[in-house]
Amino acid sequence: MENKDSTVKLVGFWVSPYVQRVRWALKLKGVEYEYIEEDIFNRSHLLSELNPVHQKVPILVHSGKPLPESFIILEYIDETWKHNPLLPQDPHERATARFWAKFAEEKLFDAAWIGLCSEDDEHEGAVKSSIEALEKIEENLKGKNFFGGDRIGYVDIIIGWISYMLPIWEEVASMKIYDPMKFPAITSWISNFRKHPVIKEEYLPSKDEMIVYFQWRRKVLKGTFPPVFSMKKN
Amino acid sequence: MENKDSTVKLVGFWVSPYVQRVRWALKLKGVEYEYIEEDIFNRSHLLSELNPVHQKVPILVHSGKPLPESFIILEYIDETWKHNPLLPQDPHERATARFWAKFAEEKLFDAAWIGLCSEDDEHEGAVKSSIEALEKIEENLKGKNFFGGDRIGYVDIIIGWISYMLPIWEEVASMKIYDPMKFPAITSWISNFRKHPVIKEEYLPSKDEMIVYFQWRRKVLKGTFPPVFSMKKN
Repeated sequence: MENKDSTVKLVGFWVSPYVQRVRWALKLKGVEYEYIEEDIFNRSHLLSELNPVHQKVPILVHSGKPLPESFIILEYIDETWKHNPLLPQDPHERATARFWAKFAEEKLFDAAWIGLCSEDDEHEGAVKSSIEALEKIEENLKGKNFFGGDRIGYVDIIIGWISYMLPIWEEVASMKIYDPMKFPAITSWISNFRKHPVIKEEYLPSKDEMIVYFQWRRKVLKGTFPPVFSMKKN
Repeated sequence: MENKDSTVKLVGFWVSPYVQRVRWALKLKGVEYEYIEEDIFNRSHLLSELNPVHQKVPILVHSGKPLPESFIILEYIDETWKHNPLLPQDPHERATARFWAKFAEEKLFDAAWIGLCSEDDEHEGAVKSSIEALEKIEENLKGKNFFGGDRIGYVDIIIGWISYMLPIWEEVASMKIYDPMKFPAITSWISNFRKHPVIKEEYLPSKDEMIVYFQWRRKVLKGTFPPVFSMKKN
């Protein structure tokens, strides 16, 4: 691999919400890049070469140096291209943004995914946890256009998947997590997010293709999920 | 709570490895603070007031503003007190540090904890996963005194628990994860870490008290852990 260039490449998979975050972030920064589609079910040597530890997408390759994981890539993008900041400047506000991003990932994304791929008790527990997470996110979002205030930023990108993918998961798994009447702040945020010029213009997988894809994932993964919601620490 | 001061308080629990990280980080920065011990099994109103979402320690209270979660607190500390940096300056090196911290947390800490609190298949799966994670950490650490090179930093603090707590977990749950002969780089790192002037001077819970505490946790939590190691995504 070249080492002295400044090219940006993104190795992704068309339907990955993790990859979608990086697409949005690069677009918000106005960074030009080459997109490389990787078949994650038939992995090429590229994936093990660029991300030997996890062999997962997304991988951002900047100046020949590969970097995995959407959370880490987003911080990298924000530190490397400093215009249109994703995170606030104030340390406490930065920490608060990181807190909500982490919360949304661990309590909503992971729970909703298990809801998608499970049945019976696991499924019900996951749906319940997802709704509880959404209630806390609703509370945090009240009175704001975006998570950071008036400008789109880090938390919006992390949580952006609920604006287009959560409805697909709900449909595929016949579950109800997001209720527009119960979550007016989130409803209004979804509208703000989707109407944002950069988000509006950026690629999104089609609804039909997502339905087919996640129906297949649900079928394959159903039953492989344990009731992790009883896990306790300390 | 006061809002215009610059006092630093740390709400903690004596045996929490998450709290320990914040102790180390504040000490490395030379930041004076008031330590407030919280009984996490008999939570005071302080905990729900300062950390309403998770009600967990550690909580760093700086200038009256509370902040939870060790990963987030460490970044905050590094951004607020800029001397003796924990993270490197270069964005790619910062990202690499974050990657290994996250890896160690998700693949080693969480797995070893489940190993501590489980039996049979769950226990064996967790021990196996922990060893695999340690193998990758060993590979990453080869030839270096600390994770970032010659200076102690972010990853060392995150992973520091293995230098004093992992042996306790191993003893309590009769498991073998860390083998000094198999992991010479980690063995040498443990020695460097424990000998570091700041780490050497900082409080650590006593071995005997940790044994008693974790024997009790194991007894209480045993059987509550599902085999999460079969979880798959995408």
